[in-house]
Amino acid sequence: MTQNTRHKLVDASRTIARVAMGEAYADLVIQNGTLVNVHSGELLENMDVAVAAGRIAYVGKADHTIGAQTVVIDAAGKYISPGLLDGHMHVESTMLSVTEFSKAGLAKGTTGIFMDPHEIANVFGAEGVRLMHEEGQQLPLKVFTTFPSCVPATDDLEDAGASLAVDDIKEGMTWDNVVGLGEVMNFPGVVYGDPKMCGEIAETIKHGKTVTGHFPSDDDRMLQAYIASGVTSDHETITREQGLHKVRMGMHLMIREGSAWHDVKEVIKVVTEDKVSTDNISLVTDDVNPQTLVEKGHINHVVRRAIEEGVDPVTAIQMATINVARYFKLEQDLGSIAPGKCADILLIDDIRKVEPSTVITDGQVVYDQGVFRVEFPTFIYPEHIRNSMNVKRELTAEDFKLASRGQRDKTQVNVIRVIENSARTEKMQAMLQVEQGIIQPDAKQDIIRLACIERHHGTGQISLAFAHGFQVKTGAVASTVAHDSHNLLVMGIDEQDMSFAANELVRMGGGTIVVENGKVLAQVPLTIAGLMSDKSLLEVVDEVTQLDQAWKQIGCSLNAPFMTFSLIALPVIPEIRITNRGLADVTAFKLIDVEIV
Amino acid sequence: MTQNTRHKLVDASRTIARVAMGEAYADLVIQNGTLVNVHSGELLENMDVAVAAGRIAYVGKADHTIGAQTVVIDAAGKYISPGLLDGHMHVESTMLSVTEFSKAGLAKGTTGIFMDPHEIANVFGAEGVRLMHEEGQQLPLKVFTTFPSCVPATDDLEDAGASLAVDDIKEGMTWDNVVGLGEVMNFPGVVYGDPKMCGEIAETIKHGKTVTGHFPSDDDRMLQAYIASGVTSDHETITREQGLHKVRMGMHLMIREGSAWHDVKEVIKVVTEDKVSTDNISLVTDDVNPQTLVEKGHINHVVRRAIEEGVDPVTAIQMATINVARYFKLEQDLGSIAPGKCADILLIDDIRKVEPSTVITDGQVVYDQGVFRVEFPTFIYPEHIRNSMNVKRELTAEDFKLASRGQRDKTQVNVIRVIENSARTEKMQAMLQVEQGIIQPDAKQDIIRLACIERHHGTGQISLAFAHGFQVKTGAVASTVAHDSHNLLVMGIDEQDMSFAANELVRMGGGTIVVENGKVLAQVPLTIAGLMSDKSLLEVVDEVTQLDQAWKQIGCSLNAPFMTFSLIALPVIPEIRITNRGLADVTAFKLIDVEIV
Repeated sequence: MTQNTRHKLVDASRTIARVAMGEAYADLVIQNGTLVNVHSGELLENMDVAVAAGRIAYVGKADHTIGAQTVVIDAAGKYISPGLLDGHMHVESTMLSVTEFSKAGLAKGTTGIFMDPHEIANVFGAEGVRLMHEEGQQLPLKVFTTFPSCVPATDDLEDAGASLAVDDIKEGMTWDNVVGLGEVMNFPGVVYGDPKMCGEIAETIKHGKTVTGHFPSDDDRMLQAYIASGVTSDHETITREQGLHKVRMGMHLMIREGSAWHDVKEVIKVVTEDKVSTDNISLVTDDVNPQTLVEKGHINHVVRRAIEEGVDPVTAIQMATINVARYFKLEQDLGSIAPGKCADILLIDDIRKVEPSTVITDGQVVYDQGVFRVEFPTFIYPEHIRNSMNVKRELTAEDFKLASRGQRDKTQVNVIRVIENSARTEKMQAMLQVEQGIIQPDAKQDIIRLACIERHHGTGQISLAFAHGFQVKTGAVASTVAHDSHNLLVMGIDEQDMSFAANELVRMGGGTIVVENGKVLAQVPLTIAGLMSDKSLLEVVDEVTQLDQAWKQIGCSLNAPFMTFSLIALPVIPEIRITNRGLADVTAFKLIDVEIV
Repeated sequence: MTQNTRHKLVDASRTIARVAMGEAYADLVIQNGTLVNVHSGELLENMDVAVAAGRIAYVGKADHTIGAQTVVIDAAGKYISPGLLDGHMHVESTMLSVTEFSKAGLAKGTTGIFMDPHEIANVFGAEGVRLMHEEGQQLPLKVFTTFPSCVPATDDLEDAGASLAVDDIKEGMTWDNVVGLGEVMNFPGVVYGDPKMCGEIAETIKHGKTVTGHFPSDDDRMLQAYIASGVTSDHETITREQGLHKVRMGMHLMIREGSAWHDVKEVIKVVTEDKVSTDNISLVTDDVNPQTLVEKGHINHVVRRAIEEGVDPVTAIQMATINVARYFKLEQDLGSIAPGKCADILLIDDIRKVEPSTVITDGQVVYDQGVFRVEFPTFIYPEHIRNSMNVKRELTAEDFKLASRGQRDKTQVNVIRVIENSARTEKMQAMLQVEQGIIQPDAKQDIIRLACIERHHGTGQISLAFAHGFQVKTGAVASTVAHDSHNLLVMGIDEQDMSFAANELVRMGGGTIVVENGKVLAQVPLTIAGLMSDKSLLEVVDEVTQLDQAWKQIGCSLNAPFMTFSLIALPVIPEIRITNRGLADVTAFKLIDVEIV
């Protein structure tokens, strides 16, 4: 059973029409609040909202809908807002299962998400997508899926756990509540006519669904070719100029405020300074980590940020409600408080803070005054999803030693230089010592060992390289969150610690770990596909907080080192990366040798 | 072949992407105009638009797309606007075939219409709908159809030529370019759960299409029950208050300016004074007669009227372009000038006048400086559609004599009182002479005879009644445009002239005619279903002008008497009507006797 069938409008309409007419009583009436009317763009005082059969029956003075059994909620002094929608996010980034994430989101006023389960797709393909989607369908949070479009991220530089072909997209488009194609990251593929990309877009359009985009480039001609190919949105915009240009070109502009990407401050100027029509603009989170969910919130935080930057509160709420619903052609069901819509409603004390005191979905009070009022179902992932570590054999210190091809005691190598707070890396060169034929890391130069171990197919493949910029002085770190292929990534000075970290992580079923001198300093077990925890938000935040401490303990003082580390294997962002196949020069789009002979 | 398949985005996208990238040349480039950007709500100067494969490839400085074969149009000093869309109209009201109408519309900048072929449906059912729809698919004008929902208008008071059932709607929803359900006039049926109405709405929603509405009432509870039942728009709003309320309730508000209904002046205050968000508001014509097309224009006239009332020109154009496209879920193809969209483009000298000098559809110059640049196809309706008069026998004067049931020389009768410039009628009573058992009309009291002759099934059924208010002193008028069943309507003083008018009209295959003393004063033959002419716009205007003169000649000085007359048989508007079955009291929803005994 899907969300859509649970409370289909055509099934509910007789009931709610009778309630509107005064022929039957409402299940629930919210009284005397200030309605956030996202259709007219107004705040309307002293309004009631009557609900029946999970849908809104009547808006206005609703005394005639109140019977003996009707639950009445007094909203005097509060705002009645439609539930918030996040038009683009990856649940995997929260490290939580969809169920656990839904609690965090609902408590912050998120009543619907449009998730792109891109990470699990790289591990388990269409099966992974289906499982996360199915998990979402049984929740009070409405979970819509955009089917991942670019799995694996590259065909020639790495090996993911799975790949998705046009036929997978064709099949996925027939699923209820799959509303479109996930961010089409391979924009060069689109504009140059790659058959897979064009085929996926064509299947999506054929099903009347929405092709969502990802266009981080400044190239205007490529942008227009990309739009002309059927992609209708973008969430990678970081400048006002690009935002304005994309709106003018008819794109649905998704302005992002995630844990690492803080784009609202700059891009919202399209609204506050350029003053364009806002109906084709929305607010999204893209990637939020568990700490952000606790400390700042979810999409409500993005709405708040927009208001802080000078956007009218009702306009800001439009950008996280009706605009999103309309973009995904779900306007008849979602995005506002009006007759017929799903009764997804928030009560908010301060419209500029956007912290809900009460959250209602499908007419049911889900969350009230800090307490959940419903039981959440459990969703058990199959055994093989919870045992995703398929590494050929126990690792040893020898596996992490890179032999020099020459005879000298020094050798020049290509090094991945990471940049704090950036997803980019730079290609640099360094001179390293060779001892007993093995190229040595050098803490003084801040150059450490890096390894990427294929972990999906048990091939035993290991690639080795060097990185600069982490400031790690001791110990090792390992992670199966290693975008986008999510192989087993290890780094450190000491090859013993590296093998220890890798073996421990395999043993615990994936996740991320920091070790030192053969001891575990901190670990975040992510047993669902090596990406998501089966624990609660607060437990995960606790683990992640300890992990951050452990990073510091081994010498790294970067902001969000885990993010920087987990992106070091992503061969679609310049300039240089490590994959399971080797060192990838992303600019040249080829594998290169570590050692420069 | 349908419009959609002629230039499907997925077929064109490779070509236009290559043009955008500079890898191929455009077919057409419009240079140096001021772009009406309906996405951002701006006017942008010095813009080019490059077109290939019927779609827009690039917007901006497009020199790189110009090759030796590229047609270049200089738009210096002109506005480049997206083609205008009329979100709700009945082509039959123009008395023109869809082909002939398309010329009139295109010359005024209309590049797409959403027609509800409700009139022909009452004569020929689904076959009539299909024929008009098919005629529309071969034109440079984009013709989308909303499938008529209420045929016949009533089940119990009249006989139309055909009826449409839920299964017809189910079938129609599978046709390309049928984008929704036509105005659901039977709003009481909807709110009280009539299975036919609810079934039609459910089929439409199931196909992901749009249920358009018609809600002329002030009843708020009924309105909300109507919206809750899945109807998402209304074009019957005549007051600012109702317009504001409908916007707040999430309806797509269609503000109408037709030949008879001039709603812009009042309802546009929702925009100019209430200043609501305008993205869910559009402008429509509903019904325009041929003279209006010539004298004022089509949807461009409505845009102009909105501007005259103080709406910003770009906002007004949004309400006849992108807002309409989005409402019908056609935003990816229509409604703006942006990469990927169908190249439906106007060049306009004065943005406040909205008179196009050049009209382009699917990248082809269709109309330029008063001249059509394309050949229009011919569409031949089948023989039986052009011979729709199925009257049992030749009519005689005797047929129009209403016998008194009493013996007295005077009798009291119920009379239909018509109101100038209104679709409403009032029920009045009058005392009429009885001569030789026949109730007599009375020119002094302005009471004339009225007859409605069943003309679809050859039943020979004739009903007789009396009307007040036409001021007709002599002669007779007959018409097969007689909403909604379109039976043969006749009125006059003299029964000889009435039979002459009726027989002449049958002979010419339907239309409307004015006669006096056995001579035809004027006639408008409408041979397509008795509703539409097979002649050109100017010929029809000429005929209609003569008809107006003839009405005056027989004594009628009402404004638009033909409109008043043609609505006198419509038993869904209060208070009293004539149908082929007899005199209908619309308030009581039953047939009543003419004579009050």
